[in-house]
Amino acid sequence: MLGKCIDNVRKNVPLVHNITNYVTVNDVANILLACGGSPIMSDEPEDVEDITSICGGLNINIGTLNRSSIEAMHRAGRRAQELGHVLLLDPVGAGASALRTDTAVSLMDELSFTAIRGNISEIKTLASGSGTTKGVDADVADAVTEETLDSSVAFVKRLAEKTGAVIAVTGAIDLVADADRCFVIRNGRPEMGKITGTGCQLSGMMTAFLAANPDAKLEAAAAAVCAMGLAGETGWSRMQEGDGNSTYRNRIIDAIYNMDAKTLEEGAKYEIR
Amino acid sequence: MLGKCIDNVRKNVPLVHNITNYVTVNDVANILLACGGSPIMSDEPEDVEDITSICGGLNINIGTLNRSSIEAMHRAGRRAQELGHVLLLDPVGAGASALRTDTAVSLMDELSFTAIRGNISEIKTLASGSGTTKGVDADVADAVTEETLDSSVAFVKRLAEKTGAVIAVTGAIDLVADADRCFVIRNGRPEMGKITGTGCQLSGMMTAFLAANPDAKLEAAAAAVCAMGLAGETGWSRMQEGDGNSTYRNRIIDAIYNMDAKTLEEGAKYEIR
Amino acid sequence: MLGKCIDNVRKNVPLVHNITNYVTVNDVANILLACGGSPIMSDEPEDVEDITSICGGLNINIGTLNRSSIEAMHRAGRRAQELGHVLLLDPVGAGASALRTDTAVSLMDELSFTAIRGNISEIKTLASGSGTTKGVDADVADAVTEETLDSSVAFVKRLAEKTGAVIAVTGAIDLVADADRCFVIRNGRPEMGKITGTGCQLSGMMTAFLAANPDAKLEAAAAAVCAMGLAGETGWSRMQEGDGNSTYRNRIIDAIYNMDAKTLEEGAKYEIR
Repeated sequence: MLGKCIDNVRKNVPLVHNITNYVTVNDVANILLACGGSPIMSDEPEDVEDITSICGGLNINIGTLNRSSIEAMHRAGRRAQELGHVLLLDPVGAGASALRTDTAVSLMDELSFTAIRGNISEIKTLASGSGTTKGVDADVADAVTEETLDSSVAFVKRLAEKTGAVIAVTGAIDLVADADRCFVIRNGRPEMGKITGTGCQLSGMMTAFLAANPDAKLEAAAAAVCAMGLAGETGWSRMQEGDGNSTYRNRIIDAIYNMDAKTLEEGAKYEIR
Repeated sequence: MLGKCIDNVRKNVPLVHNITNYVTVNDVANILLACGGSPIMSDEPEDVEDITSICGGLNINIGTLNRSSIEAMHRAGRRAQELGHVLLLDPVGAGASALRTDTAVSLMDELSFTAIRGNISEIKTLASGSGTTKGVDADVADAVTEETLDSSVAFVKRLAEKTGAVIAVTGAIDLVADADRCFVIRNGRPEMGKITGTGCQLSGMMTAFLAANPDAKLEAAAAAVCAMGLAGETGWSRMQEGDGNSTYRNRIIDAIYNMDAKTLEEGAKYEIR
Repeated sequence: MLGKCIDNVRKNVPLVHNITNYVTVNDVANILLACGGSPIMSDEPEDVEDITSICGGLNINIGTLNRSSIEAMHRAGRRAQELGHVLLLDPVGAGASALRTDTAVSLMDELSFTAIRGNISEIKTLASGSGTTKGVDADVADAVTEETLDSSVAFVKRLAEKTGAVIAVTGAIDLVADADRCFVIRNGRPEMGKITGTGCQLSGMMTAFLAANPDAKLEAAAAAVCAMGLAGETGWSRMQEGDGNSTYRNRIIDAIYNMDAKTLEEGAKYEIR
């Protein structure tokens, strides 16, 4: 099932419009190519409606938002929604500044997102305004652990129901839920947190998976999360003495490039609750 | 002949001003250093005239254009032209949005470019307004193939005559032409299309080659195209099991770093029509 | 002593706010993670005061400044100063354009920087308005050599005294000084100049070292410079045939990731004058 999702990306080559931060944008583009999608970036308000019109999905990431790109997010989002495209929100740093929180909330008010992906602190901020964030990283106090798993699963299902979006909370344990079902995913490695932008990369890739699998949105989002975590495991297994986070970044993208349906099926570690 | 072109880059160390997109800008800077040039980036309208004045060439890439950078392109372009500098246009996504097409056309109206480099769909858009693009990739229907080669060569020569620029159309077969002669180049590998920004990198490098070889513009542009394709071949030959597009990106820039005149001469695969 | 500085970064995990250029920003983020810090980027004037408030240090780099980011630099800088945070200035290209020189001088007039790091041409421009720069590289005529070492040491001490900042001039020989003492550092390799952004990376990392070592600012800045140079040596020792500047970039960040206090202590090559 998850394997078919990556096959569909490779078969359909979805074009993904990214309004994303300039920190990790190159890695987002390369991982989109690695998984079989095709990236295009545009954040000029006068350009984004044309660009998003020729795409299959729109990935909105507020990591280095500015006045002009916020306007672009709204304009592109409205057009993408009119056209029935996949719409993903990555609320980077929501909770860390008023502008980031307000922008994410305002986008959620106006648009019906297909999926929202963030760390637990960002997602809690969107849900209740009460989350805290440590910059762009999750607050340890919020972490999804085996102890808090039941309540965390219930939380993401409720938020999925309320928003109509697939909710993906990524961390040591990943949760991907709609109103009824939650994938609890245990792929990945802690060292991935020492690379900038693995979350941004996942959001870009998830947009491609969703665009290529319109009839299986929850599975598509879960497949992207499993693929990213599995790539973190595969990439780590290829690390040699003296390698560090910069080489690890390359090896993760390389692992996505070489991942096929069978590898993903066999390597995905999840249960459904 | 082509070998001498890269030797001249290494000897003259041309300073290249890049107004380019934030997706691939780091790779553009590193490949400029790899080939022997020196990069500087500036896209603030109030900054670009000073910056371009101390350079030998200006590389304008519209990949993530915005209102401010469009103004910067015009201001820098006018100053660079007054000073007799090399001027290169990379019309990323022309045909994919009205703003991109209009910006490229407007720049061509105002400035006399030394060279214009793009994929076939972008170049056809500039020539006639009738091209189509699939985002930032060429439309398959436009592709330069053995079957369409004669008409494609005639097309690029005509556009070179009309614009006064060297026209470089890159794809499976690359064409680099002035009004009289066209280099038909068969270096490179299809896997290069799975890396973001090989075209942007080539445009940056071509600007350095043109700036360092003012008396042999056609040969300089062709040498840059051959060098990029040959680096794609050399880089691929160093790929190991498990490597993918992220490592390939590094190996291509590495191959430029290690390329000398003799390697380029011997590896370049071209005919002149 | 220097070893303790990197241990403190790993122990305290300082959050560093970077207003920096889009050319090298990804490498800045990854080297900050490699050394044990945590990066966040924001350059929107309405966002930066909130963001900088939750950080321990602010790294201002004018490499691709624009009207909006210049406003952000001033607003973030004032807030960071009110909060007693570490403030670092990297005056990329000061001397290459009026806007860059004026922005750097204006920031120095308004703010009390903890440290200022640049190449010798940039630092001379700030000191006297009389330096020259070759784009973003130092002018050879300005270089710190064994012959000019005495006068260069005196120069940086005077500037440190005048500004109250630790002054770090990096090049073939690095100088890191306060009003009384100057570390003369001979780590590093000339090939580091063939990678874009080793200076930007060092500025980001130095901000983390300063934030984690508030009682030993001169030593912290010197430790960051030694760490960067030593990583250049370690990274180079791992280069294989066919590798070039792109792989070298990865290996340097990897070397920081794997550097411990003992390695840094033993590898640092400096004298104090």
